[in-house]
Amino acid sequence: MRVIGVDPGITRCGYGIVEVRSGISRHLASGTIRAEGDEAIERSLYRICVSLERLIEAHDVDAMAIERLFVNRNTRSALGVAQAMGVAMLAAAETGIGVTQYTPSEVKAAVTGTGTADKAQVGFMIKAILRLDVEPDSPDASDALALALAHAHGAKLRSLEERIVSRT
Amino acid sequence: MRVIGVDPGITRCGYGIVEVRSGISRHLASGTIRAEGDEAIERSLYRICVSLERLIEAHDVDAMAIERLFVNRNTRSALGVAQAMGVAMLAAAETGIGVTQYTPSEVKAAVTGTGTADKAQVGFMIKAILRLDVEPDSPDASDALALALAHAHGAKLRSLEERIVSRT
Repeated sequence: MRVIGVDPGITRCGYGIVEVRSGISRHLASGTIRAEGDEAIERSLYRICVSLERLIEAHDVDAMAIERLFVNRNTRSALGVAQAMGVAMLAAAETGIGVTQYTPSEVKAAVTGTGTADKAQVGFMIKAILRLDVEPDSPDASDALALALAHAHGAKLRSLEERIVSRT
Repeated sequence: MRVIGVDPGITRCGYGIVEVRSGISRHLASGTIRAEGDEAIERSLYRICVSLERLIEAHDVDAMAIERLFVNRNTRSALGVAQAMGVAMLAAAETGIGVTQYTPSEVKAAVTGTGTADKAQVGFMIKAILRLDVEPDSPDASDALALALAHAHGAKLRSLEERIVSRT
């Protein structure tokens, strides 16, 4: 199974693609889609959507995992995140893959075993699980890889559960 | 000049297309893009983006006007509006037209002469300006037409100002 994790944002949108096969997780690609200078918002959104579509197709991705958004204080930036999230989900629909949303604590728990892990712990575990020699190119890319791993491992657990249920 | 106004929302997205030529405003199309039953959010976003692209191309639209979003209380629904807004702006980028955002009071002032007009006044003026026999098919479509008119008339004023400036 191949999963793309997306950490959405208009000026910086992180992505991470992992493959999980026979219990082994492998890093396929990760990076950050960045807005160019002072371009119009719609140009940035276009860049995000097209880039994600190309990545999904190039790596034959099966599913998208994206962070569930909550609004608390910084509502102005949350709107930008929601707009980027909208076009990321659109990229999934256009390439025919499903989207699952995860809360930050679900992602942390899936990757580190505890929902209260800090950024450094998450980064450490991602590097360990994916046997990376270098850190991902940005915190956004790191968060995106964590989302992808959370989904891939969760999906694996779900499919094991289904097999157990179907046997009994 | 042909303008599409968009009142974004995931379950209901209003659109209205007007043409302003020689000071005469004409209604070309308006309606509501509705989500189907309990479909996934990404499917609704896809429907909105594709529908808007088709409308922009079918009516040879020059520009998009969309409501500037402010978050106050109902943040949950604001996130959905922002996601829909993201894919609407993407539809503009994909079809090569520019996007201008307007506050509700800018739209009201452009259509009725006062920024504090209520919905009924706005609806009345839209019907009058566009010489419509029937009401638009939803409040969303009506708001979208108001946005389109605000932009078309504002753009007309701006181009007149530019001509005056260039003469002096």
